[in-house]
Amino acid sequence: MAKTRWFCFAIALLVIARFCNCEEAVLSQKEQDRVSRLPGQDFDVDFAHYSGFVTTNEKLGRALFYWFFEAAEDAASKPLVLWLNGGPGCSSVGFGEAEEIGPFHIKSDGKTLYLNQYSWNQVANILFLDAPVGVGYSYSNTSSDLLTNGDQRTAKDSLKFLLKWVELYPEYKGREFYIAGESYAGHYIPQLSQAIVEHNQASGENTINLMGYMVGNGLMDDFHDSLGLYQYIWTLGFISDQTYSLLKLKCGLEPFVHTSEVCLKALDIMDMEIGDIDQYSVFTPACVANASQAKMLLKKRRVGGRVSEQYDPCTMKHSKVYFNLPEVQEALHVPPGLAPSKWDVCSDDVSRNWKDSPSSVLNIYHELIAAGLRIWVFSGDADAVVPVTSTRYSIDALKLHPVSPYGPWYIDGQVGGWTQEYDGLNFVTVRGAGHEVPLHRPKEALALFQAFITGTSLSTPENSISSEKSELINDS
Amino acid sequence: MAKTRWFCFAIALLVIARFCNCEEAVLSQKEQDRVSRLPGQDFDVDFAHYSGFVTTNEKLGRALFYWFFEAAEDAASKPLVLWLNGGPGCSSVGFGEAEEIGPFHIKSDGKTLYLNQYSWNQVANILFLDAPVGVGYSYSNTSSDLLTNGDQRTAKDSLKFLLKWVELYPEYKGREFYIAGESYAGHYIPQLSQAIVEHNQASGENTINLMGYMVGNGLMDDFHDSLGLYQYIWTLGFISDQTYSLLKLKCGLEPFVHTSEVCLKALDIMDMEIGDIDQYSVFTPACVANASQAKMLLKKRRVGGRVSEQYDPCTMKHSKVYFNLPEVQEALHVPPGLAPSKWDVCSDDVSRNWKDSPSSVLNIYHELIAAGLRIWVFSGDADAVVPVTSTRYSIDALKLHPVSPYGPWYIDGQVGGWTQEYDGLNFVTVRGAGHEVPLHRPKEALALFQAFITGTSLSTPENSISSEKSELINDS
Repeated sequence: MAKTRWFCFAIALLVIARFCNCEEAVLSQKEQDRVSRLPGQDFDVDFAHYSGFVTTNEKLGRALFYWFFEAAEDAASKPLVLWLNGGPGCSSVGFGEAEEIGPFHIKSDGKTLYLNQYSWNQVANILFLDAPVGVGYSYSNTSSDLLTNGDQRTAKDSLKFLLKWVELYPEYKGREFYIAGESYAGHYIPQLSQAIVEHNQASGENTINLMGYMVGNGLMDDFHDSLGLYQYIWTLGFISDQTYSLLKLKCGLEPFVHTSEVCLKALDIMDMEIGDIDQYSVFTPACVANASQAKMLLKKRRVGGRVSEQYDPCTMKHSKVYFNLPEVQEALHVPPGLAPSKWDVCSDDVSRNWKDSPSSVLNIYHELIAAGLRIWVFSGDADAVVPVTSTRYSIDALKLHPVSPYGPWYIDGQVGGWTQEYDGLNFVTVRGAGHEVPLHRPKEALALFQAFITGTSLSTPENSISSEKSELINDS
Repeated sequence: MAKTRWFCFAIALLVIARFCNCEEAVLSQKEQDRVSRLPGQDFDVDFAHYSGFVTTNEKLGRALFYWFFEAAEDAASKPLVLWLNGGPGCSSVGFGEAEEIGPFHIKSDGKTLYLNQYSWNQVANILFLDAPVGVGYSYSNTSSDLLTNGDQRTAKDSLKFLLKWVELYPEYKGREFYIAGESYAGHYIPQLSQAIVEHNQASGENTINLMGYMVGNGLMDDFHDSLGLYQYIWTLGFISDQTYSLLKLKCGLEPFVHTSEVCLKALDIMDMEIGDIDQYSVFTPACVANASQAKMLLKKRRVGGRVSEQYDPCTMKHSKVYFNLPEVQEALHVPPGLAPSKWDVCSDDVSRNWKDSPSSVLNIYHELIAAGLRIWVFSGDADAVVPVTSTRYSIDALKLHPVSPYGPWYIDGQVGGWTQEYDGLNFVTVRGAGHEVPLHRPKEALALFQAFITGTSLSTPENSISSEKSELINDS
């Protein structure tokens, strides 16, 4: 008798959830997206996580895939952080979650998982988004959409995603919110931040309570990025004097997307001289099995985010196996009809058909610095894709006022990298890390993230540098 | 009865050896220098080795210490190679033998040895020389000699050493002879080579049959070395823009030895900004125990040769323990009366009182290229003491004609570094290696040495680079 009553109650709840717009139904959608034990997961975790789709364009049927991890402890008091990878066309799930900052990393069999002890959900609630459509599991019912992506639509759709996502997870409305990511997300992150700031100003709302963002080895400004790249690879001896000159001559003022034929030829020569190294991590062994794929990625100016002595250079391959497993797709709530015929870490179709990409986002930096956002820019210094030199040139171009001496920051008694605080922006390097900083230097990356979230300086203990330097400058 | 006769014979031999100039006596001196099992050596080796002193100035009592290793196999058919470390003031025994290319390396207890599987005596007979006096066990009976060392006397004494050494080891008279080394040996090696070439021309002899030399991360030209250093550390983000400008302004034209106060101040700021990293290997952990000593070395412009993920950054400390053991000194034929009160890897007295050091040795390169020597210049690209950039600038200043395309060289399917062959000189980088290339990348270093000795190209398989490049240059 008690059983029957319980059954009726459950049915009633399901009916409500299906047809009603009330809060219970919303909760139910979230509950539907809850992920239980994953294939290959032979350990328990203390946090809940959710994955599924959010429709960003009803008419055309565009839907973005997300995977959300509550903080490991005390989620309710912790901020919400959106993580974005680059490309354009690369998956935040494939890179950010599975190789970098997420809790579930994939073993070399491509089938079993292990718990990343440096997962960023120790510090915050982390949301991974695959954007735009055509990336990862994100799809559109209008197939032409996959060939017409660009920066502007990505920002718009991502904003729409966020606004709808907080409807599903209303406990995050007004929560401290940050965006972090790397590489081509150097475009996505300021653009989406700008869209949020404008939306908040227009609506007078603060549902998406954006406090700041953090970009790693990110594209910022085509001219300065190129200049820094050619200088970095020449300085380290990866290319000849002649090719260095050639690159400055033929590619000096080229856009990142839609590069000219003559510059592409110079880039081919550059790649030939560099040889089969992992350009995303120049001092560590390359994944020999990846060679052909790596070359393909390089053809399109090598931005995406593959990536040291403690890292498996073939990591990307493991994601490719895992996220193609039907049982994994089922566990992540990707219905067979919606799953891509072949999931890939980066989509060539998306990157090859990219429509709009401004040559610089520095103007947005100026705007968002003025808006008072906390902005950190970090760089793994062993990356030859968007090297530390490029980032320095771009930051120099912002003409910010330094408010601390330049110097090293320490972790476990060793120099983790260098840092410079400016009025409105913090610059941090991570020593020995490649393009995907959290993959190569997971401990340092977690310390960096913790400092960013808490707004704590990673400053040098040598506070005397500044005064000694000005004395010497005045001496001259 | 037989015993008594044997004893008389032995005594007679010793008397002959002591008072007679005949070949038997010479052989006996060599036999006296033969090293049997060393303290802490719990393994057998297949080669003979010898150590002792050669007097280079009878009147003043200057004597240089050497340690000589026959090739592991077929020594009679293999060339003789002299290895020199830098400083000025650092020991080829403490660095070259015990940390880099020698067979006996020291474990972290400072007492036991292990066999270096990448020892260069697999390829050649290797002679380590501690020069000038005051370095390692090398001494002078005239104590003022230790405070009046310089480039010129080092070259002269080293030549004298070689001429007397081949008298002790006559089987090496006329043998193919090469010199190799690193750091400040970037001065010693061309200078000694020049002295040998001039001696051979003057005497009409070829006793020291010099065929070529190889210099790693070597000082070549003060101006270009400085320029390259500041660019390298700025490009990698180790110093601020301001300090970069300051260094170019205050230290741009400074001599390596006897640097001005104002430049030393700028270098102090540079060191403060760089922080406690191992500047000899910038991407690997520093030896925390070495911190104070490292700082002291840095004060004197940081050239010497300390030096990765597979290396013990405290190696230098182990040498310091081992070579101070009385039983080690006895085994190496250093009589208690001649042993320094405290053996050190680098002598501060020697470096601080260095007399002459030309600002450039590029003129000697021109001379020795014209003399037809085989000259190779290599560079570990993770060194911030004499970085790869410095070496590139110096080689560019030689204005040599390239005879091969610039490109990567491979080892075990991975890029070992990059190489460029010029008419008269080969340039080779070693990827990821610090200042002491054979310490960090022992396998790559042995392959490099093998190629140098056999005169084999480490050239790129991409022979098409050259033609594609000229096409593109012509296109423009």
